[in-house]
Amino acid sequence: MTTLKNDRFLRALLKQPVDRTPIWIMRQAGRYLPEYREVREQAGDFMTLCSTPELACEVTLQPLRRFDLDAAILFSDILTIPDAMGLGLYFAEGEGPRFESPLQSVADINKLGALDPSDKLKYVTDAVALIRRELDGKVPLIGFSGSPWTLATYMIEGGGSKTFARAKALLFEQAEAAHHLMNVLADSVAAYLNAQIAAGAQAVMIFDSWGGALSQAHYHAFSLASMQRIVDQLKRKQDGETIPVIIFTKGGGNWLESMADAGVDAVGLDWTVDIGAARQRIGDKVALQGNLDPAVMAASTETVEREARSILDSYGAGSGHVFNLGHGITPNIKPENVEALVNVVHSHSEQYHQV
Amino acid sequence: MTTLKNDRFLRALLKQPVDRTPIWIMRQAGRYLPEYREVREQAGDFMTLCSTPELACEVTLQPLRRFDLDAAILFSDILTIPDAMGLGLYFAEGEGPRFESPLQSVADINKLGALDPSDKLKYVTDAVALIRRELDGKVPLIGFSGSPWTLATYMIEGGGSKTFARAKALLFEQAEAAHHLMNVLADSVAAYLNAQIAAGAQAVMIFDSWGGALSQAHYHAFSLASMQRIVDQLKRKQDGETIPVIIFTKGGGNWLESMADAGVDAVGLDWTVDIGAARQRIGDKVALQGNLDPAVMAASTETVEREARSILDSYGAGSGHVFNLGHGITPNIKPENVEALVNVVHSHSEQYHQV
Repeated sequence: MTTLKNDRFLRALLKQPVDRTPIWIMRQAGRYLPEYREVREQAGDFMTLCSTPELACEVTLQPLRRFDLDAAILFSDILTIPDAMGLGLYFAEGEGPRFESPLQSVADINKLGALDPSDKLKYVTDAVALIRRELDGKVPLIGFSGSPWTLATYMIEGGGSKTFARAKALLFEQAEAAHHLMNVLADSVAAYLNAQIAAGAQAVMIFDSWGGALSQAHYHAFSLASMQRIVDQLKRKQDGETIPVIIFTKGGGNWLESMADAGVDAVGLDWTVDIGAARQRIGDKVALQGNLDPAVMAASTETVEREARSILDSYGAGSGHVFNLGHGITPNIKPENVEALVNVVHSHSEQYHQV
Repeated sequence: MTTLKNDRFLRALLKQPVDRTPIWIMRQAGRYLPEYREVREQAGDFMTLCSTPELACEVTLQPLRRFDLDAAILFSDILTIPDAMGLGLYFAEGEGPRFESPLQSVADINKLGALDPSDKLKYVTDAVALIRRELDGKVPLIGFSGSPWTLATYMIEGGGSKTFARAKALLFEQAEAAHHLMNVLADSVAAYLNAQIAAGAQAVMIFDSWGGALSQAHYHAFSLASMQRIVDQLKRKQDGETIPVIIFTKGGGNWLESMADAGVDAVGLDWTVDIGAARQRIGDKVALQGNLDPAVMAASTETVEREARSILDSYGAGSGHVFNLGHGITPNIKPENVEALVNVVHSHSEQYHQV
């Protein structure tokens, strides 16, 4: 294996000393970059982009050519697993993801079995292997998946939702089928992430976009319990190296303590949480990732720099912080602001990592 | 004045002993009721319904004829103030509220002055007086307004938003104008709520629908500070009776302690918070209102009853709880489930109010 030239990201996740706070950006390969839009247009549709390893590799690497980022993240979609289960993922223009065959009944759920990622998700592990090779040790590569609850919302609602009425009805009315669904998805996600690790992913992250829409009881019983089931099955060592695990629940600020108890290395924070207060609550146990409001990125460069400094100051001295946005970067952002963000995080954080 | 026949709601807000836990429902006068849809159709458009006191009174009273609710809430819209400021509120079919003339610049903001509710909002205070007369002491009447930050988001974005990019840009880039806008809106809301109190409102509630989209620092500096400014100006006594004040920030679970410190009588909770844990955090200081997930109402009657009991059990013994949903009831709900909810809250809570 090639030696890693920049291991700041992995070290920070493991709370080992670093020279500067590492940074990567959720959805860093995305529509705010003109070179991404060009490849996206060539590909035709979004799923072709995801499922063609050469194209996924190209867009994964694009932001690293422009910015001094400390990690790459596999370019893919959070909904590849239900698509591979046969639900038929597609993207309606301006509408977000949809499924041709959503789950309609308990019978549909009971028919589902855990997915073998070596078959229908080979395009993902092929992309991981290719990206890892092309990165040539520049920075570590992050693999990822959607959380079981988040996958379930799309699988049941057939697309995005404001209220998750149908998905929640399953939790309220059919607890047994709901647990079966969560378990099948958890086992599938675990196998999928382990396949990404075997193919070269050096850290993995579980995105729980919609856990924050649940009650405290349902969050713990369904979303967090199923993430815990994944974490328990993950291969945490590969080629002698530790593979850190990050979980992120948008809107999970109430439940940081429980998330930190799930056996993970790091908890992702959205921007509604003060990172200094979060560190006091749970920061000894795990590393923290976050948490600039993505809306800041649309403001002036001075504002971006000021708000980034304020988060670094709030976290304070020592390792255990991976800088990121609190949610994905939006398409309307000027690349200049991303460059300014990456640079200010590196320069301003130096003072917090004196030996 | 007529003596109040059922003062459970007011007593619970003041943490005085009650025989049963009181209940009312956010958006209880709404599209889930066929008799509401009939009046709404007659009125033609939504604003005609709001601005015609006889119609607003009629739909306010409708749910009280069906269900044993412990409070009435003025039927109105949260955006009446910016409409009265000249921004031109309208409702595009299936799109939610929009403004014809949103705020476009700091100059637009600086032109705004605090509103005198006795002129352009007389239709609201007329409705309050009429409803109060028609209620004839059956239950207390709640007045309300949107919070300054929530009003500001619609005034700046021109309607609903997912990211609040423009409204947040104001906070990030033009702090002085942002504070001016919050102050003008806070003073307008205070005058508006005081006019509702003078006309007969027996409790008031401030709805902060979008405070939960802010960072902790901005929530405190803008949304909560402006609600505090309102609370400080409210007339808390009318005709010898105390007028309780409730504030509710959707997604505010991280900040309950600060909300409880704002000099209010009660804090509204959305469904992501465990009400028993919230009571431990802040329940000695204030009453709590909430917090059933509105999605439960679409489930079976048995589920509605089970989940309602679970919230009552979590709150436990003693006064200081007003049962409600954690957000507004949705149009797809069967009225039978509302009836079951009201009845189970009354019957199951009796055990918690033994003298």
